[in-house]
Formats: sequence, structure tokens, C-alpha cells
Amino acid sequence: MLKDFAKAYQPDKETVKASLRSERDRLFANQMKIKDAKLPVMVIFEGWGAAGKGSVISSVIQNIDPRFFRVATTNADPTEEEKRKPFLYRYFIQIPEAGKFQFFDTCWMEEVVNGVIDKTLDHETYEKRIKSINMAERQLHDNGYLVMKFFFNISKKEQKSRLDALLADKNTKWRVSKTDLWENRHYDECLEVYDRYLEDTHRANAPWYIIDAKNRKWAELQVLQFLNQGIDTALKNHSLAVPILQNTFPLEPIADLKDIPLDKTISDEDYKKELEALQAELHDLHYKLYRKKIPVIIAYEGWDAAGKGGNIKRITGALDPRGYVVEPIASPTAPEKARHFLWRFWTRLPKTGHITIFDRTWYGRVMVERLEGFCSENDWQRAYNEMNEFEKELADWGAVVIKFWVQIDNQTQLERFTDRQNTPEKQWKITDEDWRNREKWDLYENAVNEMLKKTNTSYAPWHILESVDKKYARIKALKIVIAAIKEALKKAGEK
Amino acid sequence: MLKDFAKAYQPDKETVKASLRSERDRLFANQMKIKDAKLPVMVIFEGWGAAGKGSVISSVIQNIDPRFFRVATTNADPTEEEKRKPFLYRYFIQIPEAGKFQFFDTCWMEEVVNGVIDKTLDHETYEKRIKSINMAERQLHDNGYLVMKFFFNISKKEQKSRLDALLADKNTKWRVSKTDLWENRHYDECLEVYDRYLEDTHRANAPWYIIDAKNRKWAELQVLQFLNQGIDTALKNHSLAVPILQNTFPLEPIADLKDIPLDKTISDEDYKKELEALQAELHDLHYKLYRKKIPVIIAYEGWDAAGKGGNIKRITGALDPRGYVVEPIASPTAPEKARHFLWRFWTRLPKTGHITIFDRTWYGRVMVERLEGFCSENDWQRAYNEMNEFEKELADWGAVVIKFWVQIDNQTQLERFTDRQNTPEKQWKITDEDWRNREKWDLYENAVNEMLKKTNTSYAPWHILESVDKKYARIKALKIVIAAIKEALKKAGEK
Repeated sequence: MLKDFAKAYQPDKETVKASLRSERDRLFANQMKIKDAKLPVMVIFEGWGAAGKGSVISSVIQNIDPRFFRVATTNADPTEEEKRKPFLYRYFIQIPEAGKFQFFDTCWMEEVVNGVIDKTLDHETYEKRIKSINMAERQLHDNGYLVMKFFFNISKKEQKSRLDALLADKNTKWRVSKTDLWENRHYDECLEVYDRYLEDTHRANAPWYIIDAKNRKWAELQVLQFLNQGIDTALKNHSLAVPILQNTFPLEPIADLKDIPLDKTISDEDYKKELEALQAELHDLHYKLYRKKIPVIIAYEGWDAAGKGGNIKRITGALDPRGYVVEPIASPTAPEKARHFLWRFWTRLPKTGHITIFDRTWYGRVMVERLEGFCSENDWQRAYNEMNEFEKELADWGAVVIKFWVQIDNQTQLERFTDRQNTPEKQWKITDEDWRNREKWDLYENAVNEMLKKTNTSYAPWHILESVDKKYARIKALKIVIAAIKEALKKAGEK
Repeated sequence: MLKDFAKAYQPDKETVKASLRSERDRLFANQMKIKDAKLPVMVIFEGWGAAGKGSVISSVIQNIDPRFFRVATTNADPTEEEKRKPFLYRYFIQIPEAGKFQFFDTCWMEEVVNGVIDKTLDHETYEKRIKSINMAERQLHDNGYLVMKFFFNISKKEQKSRLDALLADKNTKWRVSKTDLWENRHYDECLEVYDRYLEDTHRANAPWYIIDAKNRKWAELQVLQFLNQGIDTALKNHSLAVPILQNTFPLEPIADLKDIPLDKTISDEDYKKELEALQAELHDLHYKLYRKKIPVIIAYEGWDAAGKGGNIKRITGALDPRGYVVEPIASPTAPEKARHFLWRFWTRLPKTGHITIFDRTWYGRVMVERLEGFCSENDWQRAYNEMNEFEKELADWGAVVIKFWVQIDNQTQLERFTDRQNTPEKQWKITDEDWRNREKWDLYENAVNEMLKKTNTSYAPWHILESVDKKYARIKALKIVIAAIKEALKKAGEK
């Protein structure tokens, strides 16, 4: 589309000046409207070196109260620390919260096209990146975000004359990078790559707008016009329901909760022996996966009083504290609630070689949030696929993803609740809410069954931990974690 | 996505049976809802040979009153007549009207993938087709259509056993085509092509749903579930405003109407001489373009009483009546109003080698429909790009597209209106509406200026006919038509 792009018709100076005034006023008014409507606005600027993105961003934000926007900063190349996270991570953690703008002075495009140009990104990885980006932008749109993408376009000749002018002045010389000069010399080659990327990521839910950047004021006017128009449209679509996409990830069959026998036990003696041996094994494996830089994510869900906490302790008991973290997930905080529901999990991802254990997870979306009406039906129905996509990103990154459902029966829960209630030192563990949730057991069981069936992917499978005998469940969890890590090490060794 | 597709988890027979009953009832209820909401629903079935599309379509329509649906019939290969129309034509003319279903037993996919497989479609044309299809599906969505796409999937083994069974019975033998057998032998090769197509056309506004078609009832259930869910979502989005995409087609500058001098004239003597010579030339060219199979579309817009009719007559006066048609465009009929606004122009396209002259056109969308509020602001703002896309389809097909704006000034119109009013034999030409529209001259002038600037593409340019002297305008029109046809013949000759 870049190649086909004819310069937009540029009005005369006076018209640009007058229109700029009115579009700036319009943006000023729109900032209050997006605040009231709680609309999050993500604005991505990409383009040729020296095309003037920075100065247009500076002008645009002059019209917005500093409380309502942030400018994201992303280096062209990821830092060493960022390289140890999934590709999308360093961008996704910077998404705006509801009612605010986030301006990206380059986003996920730059890293990808640079990779193609300097041949560090092979075709297969390129296609994977495109899929990830389209997925992320679609998910943001579907979760109520306005995503606006601008590409600043200038000709080879124009770029050259700008770079020459910068170089000629000793005060601006430093602003010209080697990359800029290389880009200008290989303009046509870069054009091919940029054009392909724009085509590959031009979607109606996050379309590209190409900015004729020859003149700064005219460029700003185009940006403001598109931005204001985009905001107007998004504000009209406040209660949008979006299509539920089909899950196309490989799903494994999984039994209904009611069909799972819960009579499995282990003797105290066997438990002690096995625990010791398994923890020793996991301890050693932890160092191996650290050295192989394999990230591990262990997700715990289960009934209240099923024994998640004690189970997690038996895993962490085997681990070096420098290499893992447990993330207890409660109700979202205000900044978390104001963003995409997966944001608070993206921000908590481990780096390569590390383990993160989630005590409750993103699956709250299709359990408590579904049943308590904290999100719309469209939201939770769509979430199964969104969570499968999220875990696919993790798996593709190389992570071991293990999901545990800690299972007990209704009667066992009652016994444990009563015990907690009657034992002074356990009373802090039981709340009125626990009792209220217990009344909805059947609704929850139904939701859990649907969740297990729709998200039991081969790359991030669920494991049922039969936890009427908590010791049995702990040994089973340790074995599953060990097997999964061994498998990953084997694969890593084979490479 | 086909390759990644794991068979959906198939419930047991009893569950399928019970769910089928409830989903059929749901569809029955939904047919009335889509009727009330005036929602048009386009359902596309594609898939492997012998996957059972036909029998599922039969079952699905059992639940719908015959007044509310039609099944589109499209041959795998276009007929000779269809080959003389643009690629999208034979599909687009069959889109449903508001409040009704249209089921496609294969649509634009089949022709494209077959072309790739039998190597009659080169890579460049494939990419063009994909663009056309994505454009059409997006336009339909944006204009309020629900587009549901199902791909019926069976394994190579399953397909073979079905074909064998059909062949073994002399009553069903005829149903197995050579193509089916070829497809089964080259299953993996076809899989690659189908998968690529699905990936290339999987868009949130018209997503693919892959149907595990191993069992007929289970396949029907999946279709019904997705269809009902899609309808529910679409019904919620009744007043959807969609993003206005940027025009990325090459635009040429064009003057404001107020800056066009209208003092151009021609003497009677010159007029006669030139008219005769030009008509003779056009007459000959008409046969040449017929033989070269070049289609020509001439679109007339202009002020009331500007002289469109007389101008058109001077063109048609030179043409063989077997090779052209004039389409006068009035208010849309009920079936036209119930469809995408471009539908009534798609159905009126010439075949190759023929000329269609539109007396008023699709540009009514951004003039009368805009100013009289016959469509929403989002509709007419989006229409500039949609019309550019429409004309791009025509140009890519090989058509010569000529657009005339017949221009007079306000005072000249008043004189002609008054003359019509005072001349008994001309009174039929003037209505109260003409006088009412005249009062909105400034609003129209503004809208026309915007229209000319936003749709003056290099492949379908506007030409201003200064028609205060109608004779001058006629000669100018003839010259432009002749030049454009000559240019096209030159290009065709070069090939």
C-alpha cells in the first residue's frame, strides 16, 4: 500500500493553518470524551528515518492534558533484559489504560522490519511475528481499545536532503544514525519490506494511515484528522459485541469433573520418601533449565480449600529462591482493571530460565468474572480463544506452560470450611465470600468444565490434581512439573 | 489454520441430538429477529469434495421459512458469459437483501484455489484476487452484512472411503467427479493451497469457521452453533460505526468548481464539423474495442439542467445499439435499497467489449444521500473509499472508466429552469424537487468538491464538461471518450 500511495492532496498554507486550529480544538474536546467513555487509545507512529515523527508527536501532545497521555519509549533493539521476554512483551506492557492515550514512537513494526532488512529474521519467524502482532491488535480492539497506526512517508530524495541538512550542522549531526544513512542508500529495498509489513498488518480493526510527511504542519494536520475521526467512530461503538472467533488450536479431550475418581491416596511413608526424592530432582532440574534459559509458567486454579497453597509450597520448597516467584492473583487493582484483562499477567511473566507460579490466574475471566457479571457475555465467550492465543505466545517463545486444576468434591470442601471456621488459627483463611461462592457450586462446576474443554491445548494442557488426599496431589504435581521440564530440556538439548 | 486444526471435541450422540434440537429452534427464532432487524446474512460453505456441504445446507434451511432465504448457485468454473464480467461479479450480484439469508454452496474461494491448483492462476493474480475478496467481504460487513464462512474438513482417508462408497453404488456413481478423485490423490498439495487461502482471508469482520465434517449431524450442529452465535453478535451491533479507512489509491489534483471558467464556447459551424468527424471516429473505435473485448463505463453526474441528456445522446449517436446501453439511475427500488449501495451498479455492468453509460451514478451516495440524510454520516464518509475500490476492480478487470461532471453556474441553471417552466413541451423536465434542490446549491457544491477531490483517481479520473455552451461540452466529451478508448486499444495492442 505504501508503493501505491500517491501523495494526498496538500491544501495551501492558509487552509492547513486554519484546519490545524480546528483539529487541535477537536482533539482537546476529544480527550475529555475519551476520559468519560473510558476509551483507551493506542497511537502508533512508524515511518522513515528523519520523517519527523518525533516533532509531530510533540505537537500533538500539546493539545492533551499530561494526565491523559503517556509517550511509550521503545528502543529499536531490545535490551538484554527484554530479549529474555516474549516478543510482544515490551510493547504490550505499555498499553494505555481506559480513558487515556498512549503514543508509541515506533512499536512492534520497527523490530520486525529491521530484522528482515538485516537478515536476522528468517521467513518463518517473520510470519510468526505478523501473526502475533495481528493477534495483539485484534485482541486490543476486541477489548475496547482504539488502535491507530500512522506511517510517516517521505521520498528518498527528501530523506537525503533532510539527512544532509542535519549532518551539515554540528548541533544536529549527532541525530543522524548509521541506520538512517543506510536506509537512505537502500531506500528501495527498505520500501519493499515496509510495504509488505503494512499490507500484512492492515486490518479493519487496526488499519494503517499513511502520512504524507513532506511538510511538518501538513503531516500534523493529517494525523489529527485521522485521530479525531477514529475517536469519533470508536465513541459511537461503545457497546460493541465482536465476533467470537473459532478456536483453531489443537485441543485434547478432558474428562468432566464429575467423572474424575477422587479416592486416590498415598501412605505417609511413601509420601515422605517420594517428596524428598522428587524435590531433590526438581532442585537439580531448576539449575539446568536456568542454564538452558527455559522459562516455566505454572498456573494453579481450583476450588476454595482444595489445597493450592500447600501444593505450591511443595514445588517452591525444591527451588532456588533466586530463580522463581509466586504471584498470588487477587481482584485486579484500579490500573489493572482499566486495561486488557491479560495485561496484569503479561506484566508478571518470568524471564527466560526463571519460573513463575500463578496462584489463581487469567482463567478468572471465565469463572468468577463470568459468574459474577464482572464482564459481558461477549467478553468471557471471546476469552477462551484469547487465553489460548496468550498461551500460544508463551509456548512459541519456548516456555513450559503447566496448568493445574486442584479438584475436591463438594462434601470435602464443606468439611474443610467447617474445620477452618472452628479452628482459631485457621479462621483467617475463611470468609463470607467463600461461603457465598460455595452456594454457586453447580454454576462454577459447569463453567470449569467448559473452561477445561475449551482451553486444554496440547501446548498448554490442564492437569487435574485429585486433592481429597492433599499429599497425593502434591506428589502428582511434582511429577508433572518434573516430566514437563525434562521434556523441555530434552528438546533444548536436541537443538 | 486448517493444518493446525485439531478436530473439535465431539460430544456423544445423545448430546448432539439434544443440542441439534435446541440450535434448530434457536435458528427458527433468529430468522424472525434478522427480519425485524433487517440484517442481511451471507453464509458461505466451502470444503473438501464429499465433505457433505450439500446435505448440511439442506438440513439447515429446513429451519427457515422459504421466504427468508435463497441458495446461491455458482458453478466451479465461470460460464463464457460470466468470464466477460469482473471476477467478483457472479458472486456479488447474489448477495442477500436485508432481513434474509443467502447460502452459498461454494463462493469466491473455489474458483481461486482451483486456479492455483491447476496452475491457471499466477501468483500476482492470486494476490489480486485475495485483495478483491477481502475488500468485498469488508465492504459487506461495513455495510451491515453478517458474513459467515464455513470450511468443511475431512481427512484424506475419510474422503477416500466416502468416494469409494459413492462409486460402488451405481445410483450415486455419477456424483463423483474427476476433480474429487484428483483432489483425494493430491490431498496434501490441496491442503497447502486451501490452508493458505483460509489464512489469507481470515479477517475478524468475516472469519473462517472450520467444521469437523466427519459426522453429518455433528457437522450440522457446529454450523448451527456458529451461525446462531454470529447472528446474536450481529444483532447486538445494530448501529455500528466502522473505521473510515484511508484512501490509498493514486489521486490527481482537481480544481474547485468555483475556479473553473465557464466561458468556453464553440461556433455552430465548428460544432457541426467536429461532431460529424468525432462521431465517425468513435463509431469505428466502438468496433475495435468490441473485437479487443475492452469494456467501457461512462459515468455522468452534473447539475440539474446542465445538459447531461443531450450530451449522452451525442455519444450514443455514434454507437452501434447492439454494443451499448444507457442506464438512467433514479431512486433505488425496494430490492436495491435492501442491499449494499453498490449492488445496483454491479448488476448493471457491461460485459467485455460493451459500453455502459450511467446517467447519474453511485456518486449519489455522497451527494443526494449525504445531503438528504438517506444514509448515516459514517456511511457516506466511508463511501469515497468504497467507490474508489469499486472502480479499481473495474480498472483491474481492464475497463475504461470515464467520469464526467457536467458543470454550469447557478445563474445558467435558473435560466434553464425558467425556460423549462415556461415552455409547455419542456415542462415535464422540471419538478418541484428540482427547485428544492436548487435552494441547496451551496451545500451541493461543497459536497461535489469533496467528492471530486476524494475520488479523482488516475485509473478512473473525473473530467469537467463546461456546459454553459452545451455544444462545447458535447465536443469535449466525445474527444475525451475517443482519447481514452484509443489509449486502451494501444495498451491492448502492445500486449
